[in-house]
Amino acid sequence: MSSQTKFKKDKEIIAEYEAQIKEIRTQLVEQFKCLEQQSESRLQLLQDLQEFFRRKAEIELEYSRSLEKLAERFSSKIRSSREHQFKKDQYLLSPVNCWYLVLHQTRRESRDHATLNDIFMNNVIVRLSQISEDVIRLFKKSKEIGLQMHEELLKVTNELYTVMKTYHMYHAESISAESKLKEAEKQEEKQFNKSGDLSMNLLRHEDRPQRRSSVKKIEKMKEKRQAKYSENKLKCTKARNDYLLNLAATNAAISKYYIHDVSDLIDCCDLGFHASLARTFRTYLSAEYNLETSRHEGLDVIENAVDNLDSRSDKHTVMDMCNQVFCPPLKFEFQPHMGDEVCQVSAQQPVQTELLMRYHQLQSRLATLKIENEEVRKTLDATMQTLQDMLTVEDFDVSDAFQHSRSTESVKSAASETYMSKINIAKRRANQQETEMFYFTKFKEYVNGSNLITKLQAKHDLLKQTLGEGERAECGTTSLLNITLCAFS
Amino acid sequence: MSSQTKFKKDKEIIAEYEAQIKEIRTQLVEQFKCLEQQSESRLQLLQDLQEFFRRKAEIELEYSRSLEKLAERFSSKIRSSREHQFKKDQYLLSPVNCWYLVLHQTRRESRDHATLNDIFMNNVIVRLSQISEDVIRLFKKSKEIGLQMHEELLKVTNELYTVMKTYHMYHAESISAESKLKEAEKQEEKQFNKSGDLSMNLLRHEDRPQRRSSVKKIEKMKEKRQAKYSENKLKCTKARNDYLLNLAATNAAISKYYIHDVSDLIDCCDLGFHASLARTFRTYLSAEYNLETSRHEGLDVIENAVDNLDSRSDKHTVMDMCNQVFCPPLKFEFQPHMGDEVCQVSAQQPVQTELLMRYHQLQSRLATLKIENEEVRKTLDATMQTLQDMLTVEDFDVSDAFQHSRSTESVKSAASETYMSKINIAKRRANQQETEMFYFTKFKEYVNGSNLITKLQAKHDLLKQTLGEGERAECGTTSLLNITLCAFS
Repeated sequence: MSSQTKFKKDKEIIAEYEAQIKEIRTQLVEQFKCLEQQSESRLQLLQDLQEFFRRKAEIELEYSRSLEKLAERFSSKIRSSREHQFKKDQYLLSPVNCWYLVLHQTRRESRDHATLNDIFMNNVIVRLSQISEDVIRLFKKSKEIGLQMHEELLKVTNELYTVMKTYHMYHAESISAESKLKEAEKQEEKQFNKSGDLSMNLLRHEDRPQRRSSVKKIEKMKEKRQAKYSENKLKCTKARNDYLLNLAATNAAISKYYIHDVSDLIDCCDLGFHASLARTFRTYLSAEYNLETSRHEGLDVIENAVDNLDSRSDKHTVMDMCNQVFCPPLKFEFQPHMGDEVCQVSAQQPVQTELLMRYHQLQSRLATLKIENEEVRKTLDATMQTLQDMLTVEDFDVSDAFQHSRSTESVKSAASETYMSKINIAKRRANQQETEMFYFTKFKEYVNGSNLITKLQAKHDLLKQTLGEGERAECGTTSLLNITLCAFS
Repeated sequence: MSSQTKFKKDKEIIAEYEAQIKEIRTQLVEQFKCLEQQSESRLQLLQDLQEFFRRKAEIELEYSRSLEKLAERFSSKIRSSREHQFKKDQYLLSPVNCWYLVLHQTRRESRDHATLNDIFMNNVIVRLSQISEDVIRLFKKSKEIGLQMHEELLKVTNELYTVMKTYHMYHAESISAESKLKEAEKQEEKQFNKSGDLSMNLLRHEDRPQRRSSVKKIEKMKEKRQAKYSENKLKCTKARNDYLLNLAATNAAISKYYIHDVSDLIDCCDLGFHASLARTFRTYLSAEYNLETSRHEGLDVIENAVDNLDSRSDKHTVMDMCNQVFCPPLKFEFQPHMGDEVCQVSAQQPVQTELLMRYHQLQSRLATLKIENEEVRKTLDATMQTLQDMLTVEDFDVSDAFQHSRSTESVKSAASETYMSKINIAKRRANQQETEMFYFTKFKEYVNGSNLITKLQAKHDLLKQTLGEGERAECGTTSLLNITLCAFS
């Protein structure tokens, strides 16, 4: 029959079922492998991080020690040189102050990098090893729970297998009982047909007791088979119901496992991993950020000192330090000879005319000299301004050298930049020294001019005073000077 | 005479003058010494700074190389492990991403410290050596100018000496001429007295030619001496005037030198020193600030990655990576036995009553189980919250370890802080693991409960559906289930 060929045989069903179970078991095993691999990757990561931070801590300590040594080398030099009196007050000078602050910053950096070492060794690494412990412990516990989940799944599928087999058995028995019943019914029918002929014969030839007992027998058998069939059919129905209910339960359990439990299992493995790792990274970040803040504070102190580099104030400090060397000497006094009672310029005749002449010569000479020297001073000022512009050019920004993102991996050399290229430096220095030379030439010229002016001015002023007094002594209403000035003009 | 004793002798005046000149010369020499010492101090400072930055550059390079080596060690490990398929997608996981960024930051720091080395060696040190050259050159030129100033001063004082001596000489001559004149006047007077007597006698006894010639002689001598005296007095007056005028000029010149020229001389020595040094320090500061900015940017990238550490997203990534391992299997299908045409739960009599009974038992069992399991879930959630609080405690701020100003020089050990003290760690971990253990116990309980609920619920739902359909098949207006539910309640 065609319908017969469609039926799966018991063996086929069992084989299919077993294949399906095997597949699930394989998946469960693979899931554990995946979790294990994930845990192993984490342990590897944690180990790498520990190794990394251990080595980084070492590097920080080396760096810290080198900086400490560097600072100490110069600090001890300073301490020993301070024993000399002259050096003692050097720190009052602004460039020395900057230098001391650079050393101070070096010590600060040294301490901060030592602190970094301390935090990496005694905090970050400790945390990482604890997270490793946690990963191992949580994987173990999660696996325990996972195994229990898997056992539960297998128990459910085993139960399904059992109830399916039971259903198969009762259904087979039900079929067999049915066919037996059908056979009995056929026999009865056959007997009935026979006895129908017989009855007609009996009506004609009387009953036969043998045949009556045979019919009874067949009926009894049929009843028995009917009962057996009903019983088996009920059993089969119950078994099928059980199978169907278990099927639903099994599918629900498997579905729950794949949709929720596996995810929960991974959560168990993950428990706190990300949070603890985040705290570890944040400890590292906190250390690095704080190092940076400390560094920044120190740099700000230096920058402030650089802002306060002041040649004028330093000059006064130096002149104060060498006070007796720079204080002006006593004035030369007039030394009268042998009781000479005249101790002022005498402007009486016969020298008066000569002095007046001299005074006017001085006056006109001074006027010329002052104009000339003022010209020199203007040139000097302009040259100084040019020099100042050269000396204060803002050529110190090296931020280009730190551009990672914009440039490729290779860092530009700071020396290759325009502001520090050798040709540029040479040009700039040549230019600067030329200007400087010109400045000094002009400065000498100016000093000579002003020296001459100073001396002539002193004589001029003294003559003016003397001649003025001479005039006042004569009680004239018009100044002698004015008269002569008019006469000369 | 008392007035005679007050007069200084020529020798005294000369000695005093020479002592004063000597004092000034000594000061001038000392001033040069002071300037020289100042220049030497600067050269020493510049040499120290060069040495410092050369050594610091070396330290930066060592640090840079160590960091580069450290990053490369792990990067090459990652490259080789990526050849394995499983590892290939690891970078998608948030903790691995953090780790890669930490390595990236290490390389960035390495490059930045190499740049620092470059800037120190090829910029800062070059500047410092140029400033040294400048200091030497400027001191030389300033000394040249200073010497000229000193020569000028000495020239002025020499002139003063000369005119003073001239005055002394003419005054001496003037005194001598005066005394000679006075002598002649005395002789004349004597002669006059004599000739007075004579005249009277002459009136009586006639002239005597000898006496007349003698008077004439005396008068002639007196006139001569008078002329000499007048001449010397004029010479003396002129010499005194010259002396006085030169005195004023000398004092003015010396005063100008001490008040202006010395200061200008120091300015010449200083020319550009502070400005150039400031630019050098600013180059150093620019480098350090830029290093810091770069470091900060890198740390911000890591911090962002740490903020994005996400277990949920990682779980999905892992489950996607192992897709076939985590995808739910096919449902178990009902396998009808040998052409069994019933493939649903049969709820006809005689099993109907029993199924109904079973349904109601399931229903009440489920209600109890759900209440119980809900209690377990509540405990579980509360425990998870406690765990989360423990796992996300903000214990990563290490800023205390970087407090320089507030604490003394010694830096506090990061490990000695409360958040990382061994006792605290142990306590916290014990507490955490205890909570974790309790969580797992409750989790198992919950999983068991929910597994049971899932299975019973599936059976319950199928029965409900079947009995509902049975009822609908009977076309009753009231649900069979409802009736029985009322009966059972």
